[in-house]
Amino acid sequence: MEIEAIAHIHTGFPEKFGIPRQSGLVEEAEGRIVFVPKYRQPDALRGIREYDYLWLIWDFSENHRTEWCATVAPPRLGGRERVGVFASRSPFRPNPLGLSCVKIREVDEEACEITVSGVDMLDGTPIYDIKPYLPYADAHPEARGGFSDVTKEHALSIRIPAELEEKLTPEERAAVTGILKQDPRTAFIHDEERVWGVSYGALNVRFRVRGGEAEICEITRGGNL
Amino acid sequence: MEIEAIAHIHTGFPEKFGIPRQSGLVEEAEGRIVFVPKYRQPDALRGIREYDYLWLIWDFSENHRTEWCATVAPPRLGGRERVGVFASRSPFRPNPLGLSCVKIREVDEEACEITVSGVDMLDGTPIYDIKPYLPYADAHPEARGGFSDVTKEHALSIRIPAELEEKLTPEERAAVTGILKQDPRTAFIHDEERVWGVSYGALNVRFRVRGGEAEICEITRGGNL
Repeated sequence: MEIEAIAHIHTGFPEKFGIPRQSGLVEEAEGRIVFVPKYRQPDALRGIREYDYLWLIWDFSENHRTEWCATVAPPRLGGRERVGVFASRSPFRPNPLGLSCVKIREVDEEACEITVSGVDMLDGTPIYDIKPYLPYADAHPEARGGFSDVTKEHALSIRIPAELEEKLTPEERAAVTGILKQDPRTAFIHDEERVWGVSYGALNVRFRVRGGEAEICEITRGGNL
Repeated sequence: MEIEAIAHIHTGFPEKFGIPRQSGLVEEAEGRIVFVPKYRQPDALRGIREYDYLWLIWDFSENHRTEWCATVAPPRLGGRERVGVFASRSPFRPNPLGLSCVKIREVDEEACEITVSGVDMLDGTPIYDIKPYLPYADAHPEARGGFSDVTKEHALSIRIPAELEEKLTPEERAAVTGILKQDPRTAFIHDEERVWGVSYGALNVRFRVRGGEAEICEITRGGNL
């Protein structure tokens, strides 16, 4: 089947490193859904304000491959253990479709734009479908979460030196903290001297991780926003 | 983007009438996911038993259209009021992708088949992706459910005359009761004399609805299972 983008989402993530590994994990990370001209019809959004969350089905656009592999090595398992691709939400899938649950922040019917939070997509990601979240069918809080259950409590504490903190707006501070807390490092590289860099919107943030603490060592502005 | 079926799901629903309007509504309705030869690799299912639910992204194969319409008329709103297509889970969407949350019943790694329950697809529906349900990202039981909140309590009571009930196995009885409880009638036809027919697996069930009660008036066997 041939599917086409109905919209694109603009997020603060210009590159893959640092993107939260699931939707909703970094609530402060916002995105703006902009419909392509063909689907830019305010009527198509009628009633959408009566929901709190949306499902987005989107394109793992940076992860198209011609070959498929039956197993993947999730970062949450240290990148060494392999599980079946259908037992994971890995981007490396036979059909590179992503599924995210995002919170509705603002609906601009006139411009046909929706601002959402809790995003986990690269800036400019093509979106194929938007569906309302129906708690009576979609919410199973008691469900077992497989291997992700074991590691979901893993979070870094964050240290931002005062002179760097004052470079950030409160929104930026919240988003950057949320992103670093998730521990964006490659699972099997845990060198305490290594300086990592993550981009969020106009910010470039450099940090080190020692023990369970991420310390920001440099913040610069620039980039694509 | 071009996507291809990784599997098909075999369900008891040979026709659209009677299919539950969301996944999970009729828990007794089972389906069997059978992978296409290319993706029939037991490794691809490794670890899937550690989850309770799966997401299926599938093809509304009976609802392909060349034109799109910005609004739809959900049966839950009586079929007369229209809402935006992106504020509904209607099958008539720009990209005819369905999204269902189904419960895992049985995993047969060797045959590479998964039996699930709570299905809402036509028999033979092509499946494009299977992802594990992650409660920490996917469960929002407190979310508002839009127009579906108003009507979710609507359920018919079911009367099965004793001489018909004995024609059913306990599983069939549970599934048929679940299907009729959801009130499969076309929203705007509520003629109390009308006899409706629904197929489930080998069964053809004829029923009437009077007030809030569905009474089964005939059960025959035949059909495609």
